[in-house]
Amino acid sequence: MTSPAPLVAPPAAASTGAAHRRGPGRPRDEELDGQLVAATLALIDAGEEVTVGRVVARSGVSRAALYRRWPSLTTLIAAALDVGREVPPEVGDAVGLHELLLTGLGLGADGVAPSAPGYPEARFRQRIRLVMADRALQRAYWTSHVARRRVPLERALAAGVARGELRADLDVEAAFDAIAGVAYYQLVVRGERIDEPAVVARMRAAIELIWRGMRA
Amino acid sequence: MTSPAPLVAPPAAASTGAAHRRGPGRPRDEELDGQLVAATLALIDAGEEVTVGRVVARSGVSRAALYRRWPSLTTLIAAALDVGREVPPEVGDAVGLHELLLTGLGLGADGVAPSAPGYPEARFRQRIRLVMADRALQRAYWTSHVARRRVPLERALAAGVARGELRADLDVEAAFDAIAGVAYYQLVVRGERIDEPAVVARMRAAIELIWRGMRA
Repeated sequence: MTSPAPLVAPPAAASTGAAHRRGPGRPRDEELDGQLVAATLALIDAGEEVTVGRVVARSGVSRAALYRRWPSLTTLIAAALDVGREVPPEVGDAVGLHELLLTGLGLGADGVAPSAPGYPEARFRQRIRLVMADRALQRAYWTSHVARRRVPLERALAAGVARGELRADLDVEAAFDAIAGVAYYQLVVRGERIDEPAVVARMRAAIELIWRGMRA
Repeated sequence: MTSPAPLVAPPAAASTGAAHRRGPGRPRDEELDGQLVAATLALIDAGEEVTVGRVVARSGVSRAALYRRWPSLTTLIAAALDVGREVPPEVGDAVGLHELLLTGLGLGADGVAPSAPGYPEARFRQRIRLVMADRALQRAYWTSHVARRRVPLERALAAGVARGELRADLDVEAAFDAIAGVAYYQLVVRGERIDEPAVVARMRAAIELIWRGMRA
C-alpha cells in the first residue's frame, strides 16, 4: 500500500542539499536556493539565531541574491524548517482509512515519526521554539508547509465521507486536528519520546477513539 | 454546576504574589517563596533568560535561601510557569461528562482558556519555548503540575466508565490526551487565537468527535 508521510514528521526523503545533488542542466538558481536553505537549517540545528548576515556568511550567497529569492527571512526559515518533509502522495480509494490514520501518525509498519531519519527530534523541538517566538513565522510555516501537507489525507477523509464510510457530518479539518493533536501533545506537553512502547500504545488508543467517533 | 479549570489555561485565580497578600501569621518562608516565584515569572514574561543570579537580584532573596527552598532552578521555573493555574476541584457525578469536556477546554460558558485573565497567551508561548529547550524542565513541569491538574477530570472519566456511560475499554489517559491535544494543536501548530469563532467551532467539532468515540 501507499505509505503516506507522517503528519508530524517525515520519512527519510529530503528536499534539501540541492547543492550536493547538482546534475547537468540543474538551474543555477536552484543551487543557490539549496545553499541558502542548507545554511539556514545549519544555523537552526546549531541553536544559533538566524539572521540575514549569518545566512550570507554561512552560505556564501550574496545578500542581494538572498533578498531576490526570498521575500523575507521568515519564508526562508519556514522553508528550512520543512527540509526533510514532503507533501504525501494522494491516497487511492483502495487504502483503508483506519490504517491510513495510524501510518499518518507514524504508527504503521514504518515506525514512529519523529525518530525517522531526515527529521531528528532536536530539529522538531527547535521548530516549535522558533514558531512560538514568532507568530508570523508560525503562520507562514502553517500556510506554506503544514496546511499543504494535510491535503492528501483530508481528501482521503472527504472521500470516505462521500462513500458513506465516515459520518456525513464529519468535520474533516477538525478530525485531522484531533489526530495530529495526539502526537503533538506527547511531544510538546508530556515531553515523551514517541517511539517508547507505552507512548505508542497510548497514541494508538487515542486514534482508535477518534476513529470510532468518525465512523458512520 | 462546578466549573472545572480549563485543561490548557486557567481561570483568573492566581497562586503567586504571596508577598503582596501578607497577612498576620503568614509564614516568612511562604513570603520568600512568593518573591522568588514572582521574580522568576517576571523574567520569563520579559523574555529574559532565567538564571539564579537574576532571580536573586530581582527578588531580593539571598542565593542561600533560594537553594534552601528549591532543589534546582528547574523546579522553581516550573512553579513559576504554573502561576495562575490550579488543580481543578473534584467533579461530582451530577456534572455531565459531555459538558465537562467542553468546559475543560474553556469552551463552556466561561469562555476560552488562553485568553483568560491570569494566564496570558504570551506566557503560554514562553512556557512552550522554555520546555522545548529543556526536556528536564518539560518533564518536571509535566510531573509536578500538568499531570496533577489532569487528575480530577481523569477520575470523572473513570467514574463515567464505571457507570457504564463511557466504553468499558476506554483508555482514560489517551482520551484526555486526545481532548487536550485539540487545543494544543491550535496554539502550537496552527498558531490560532482560540477565541476566534471559527477556531472555537472547529475545536467543538473535534471534541464532539472524540466524545462519540468515548461513549458506551
